[in-house]
Amino acid sequence: MSAVRPLFECMAVIGLGLIGSSLALAARRYGLVSRVVGSARTQATGQVALQLGVIERFYDSAAEAVAEADLVMLCVPVGAFANLAEQINPYLQPGCVVSDVGSVKAAVARELLLRIPTGVHLVPGHPVAGTEHSGPESGFANLFEGRWCILTPHPECDEAAVERVSALWQGCGAMVERMSAHSHDRLMAMTSHLPHLVAYALVGTALDLGDDLRADLARFSAGGFRDFTRIAASDPVMWRDIFLHNRESVLEMLERLSAELARLHQAVLHSEGEKLHGAFARARELRQGVIQTGQAFGPHPPSHDGRSR
Amino acid sequence: MSAVRPLFECMAVIGLGLIGSSLALAARRYGLVSRVVGSARTQATGQVALQLGVIERFYDSAAEAVAEADLVMLCVPVGAFANLAEQINPYLQPGCVVSDVGSVKAAVARELLLRIPTGVHLVPGHPVAGTEHSGPESGFANLFEGRWCILTPHPECDEAAVERVSALWQGCGAMVERMSAHSHDRLMAMTSHLPHLVAYALVGTALDLGDDLRADLARFSAGGFRDFTRIAASDPVMWRDIFLHNRESVLEMLERLSAELARLHQAVLHSEGEKLHGAFARARELRQGVIQTGQAFGPHPPSHDGRSR
Repeated sequence: MSAVRPLFECMAVIGLGLIGSSLALAARRYGLVSRVVGSARTQATGQVALQLGVIERFYDSAAEAVAEADLVMLCVPVGAFANLAEQINPYLQPGCVVSDVGSVKAAVARELLLRIPTGVHLVPGHPVAGTEHSGPESGFANLFEGRWCILTPHPECDEAAVERVSALWQGCGAMVERMSAHSHDRLMAMTSHLPHLVAYALVGTALDLGDDLRADLARFSAGGFRDFTRIAASDPVMWRDIFLHNRESVLEMLERLSAELARLHQAVLHSEGEKLHGAFARARELRQGVIQTGQAFGPHPPSHDGRSR
Repeated sequence: MSAVRPLFECMAVIGLGLIGSSLALAARRYGLVSRVVGSARTQATGQVALQLGVIERFYDSAAEAVAEADLVMLCVPVGAFANLAEQINPYLQPGCVVSDVGSVKAAVARELLLRIPTGVHLVPGHPVAGTEHSGPESGFANLFEGRWCILTPHPECDEAAVERVSALWQGCGAMVERMSAHSHDRLMAMTSHLPHLVAYALVGTALDLGDDLRADLARFSAGGFRDFTRIAASDPVMWRDIFLHNRESVLEMLERLSAELARLHQAVLHSEGEKLHGAFARARELRQGVIQTGQAFGPHPPSHDGRSR
């Protein structure tokens, strides 16, 4: 579609964490919406968001925030979606668009679709971007530049509504891709959810070691471990909800990984150098693919650590 | 000690990969040694190193390179140490210092100590630094700035020799720490070797998925997976040798990790949100420690990817 701006009159951002506040900042900066209002779990978050110019108006409740919006963007952990839908549904404007930024799509869309009023368009989305930081003070307008945003609309969803949400993300600098919620969830289970679970397991393993070794862990973390502690520093509530809502795909990938780890375990146990070398050389291939597609060289968040190991 | 420069007259760097060439560049830039000569497995590597000014003279064999050196620095994969020692031992100058940069210390030091001639000082070392790139063209002089270098000398080693090697690394900007080879190997098994093994397992899991999903992996790798492909892109021969030579500690840590993963698996399987949240919140603590010790904010290699997920 031709991107007529503003795409929406009033965007209500529900949840003003890293993603919600970054989207609000980008939408305002690029004139994608006329106004941005918001609500959050706490007053304190709202005050910070107002002071930083993330939103123009803060409401104590999500119900009030959505009442004047033609775009409602759910930016809370996915576990809060069902309750939130109950709260806002009576106040949604006819014809408005409800979208989200959740990292899980199938289970969440099912819950929302059951509750959404007739005449409201649900366009589930997931911007594949972020840092390990949380809260409105972590937001920045170019978080989505050059990153993917995956939309998983139901086949019967209003095409014009999907196009407008698509234009919104493109206006924020993102590349938009559509796929089924199921494909999205399996893909993310492998590229995001499993890596995070493994990072948590690694850090948990380290924490269970004796105190003398633990003290050295932080000091000498440059050898690979640091990358995992960074991943494991993400918001625990968000991640709990992701695993509870993408259970099936995560379990599938986790079983595959356990089998692969068992193979490597056997190779180390029996000093099978050839087998280890084969597995390691093969891993380089995929890395080449990642570099070639350019995903390895996205924009930098404001302050960050770029060391490799 | 007072750092009288140059610390050594002639440093022979055996193996001109990322670490060897970076050390050579740093030692020359900061006047830590009067001359740097080298040898490598291939002529081609030697030519690149000469052209880039990494070394002043290239020898076809390690034996020739060490003949005039008062410091011999072994910078080849640890699996090559035993053979290399046989080759160079007859040519080592009396009183010279032999050191290394291997990521495993106990097994390697045992092999070298058995072979080292009387009057030659063995000072095993491990600079905890690197990138996923290999070869002399990847080297840069400030690779070691602000990073740890761990020395694991035998208690009976000549103290003056240890001090000189220590001063060399400090001259390159590194922080030097001494510990036993056993402590080093357990620490690295947790902070470096296990994370790498897990990264290989994750990438292997991804490669075993169906072709349709695989095609999307590289494109949508921003969600955590990319960090793992970066780790898994490191030199396969170096890593094979690390696992073969630090077998015992790696197996211990791998068993601990498998138990931790099994616990998380159970929590996801039974939708135990509290248990997941507890594990995730705990992981944040260690991350704080990593940031506070400053290891998360080392210098950047010349070109690099600094996105988090």
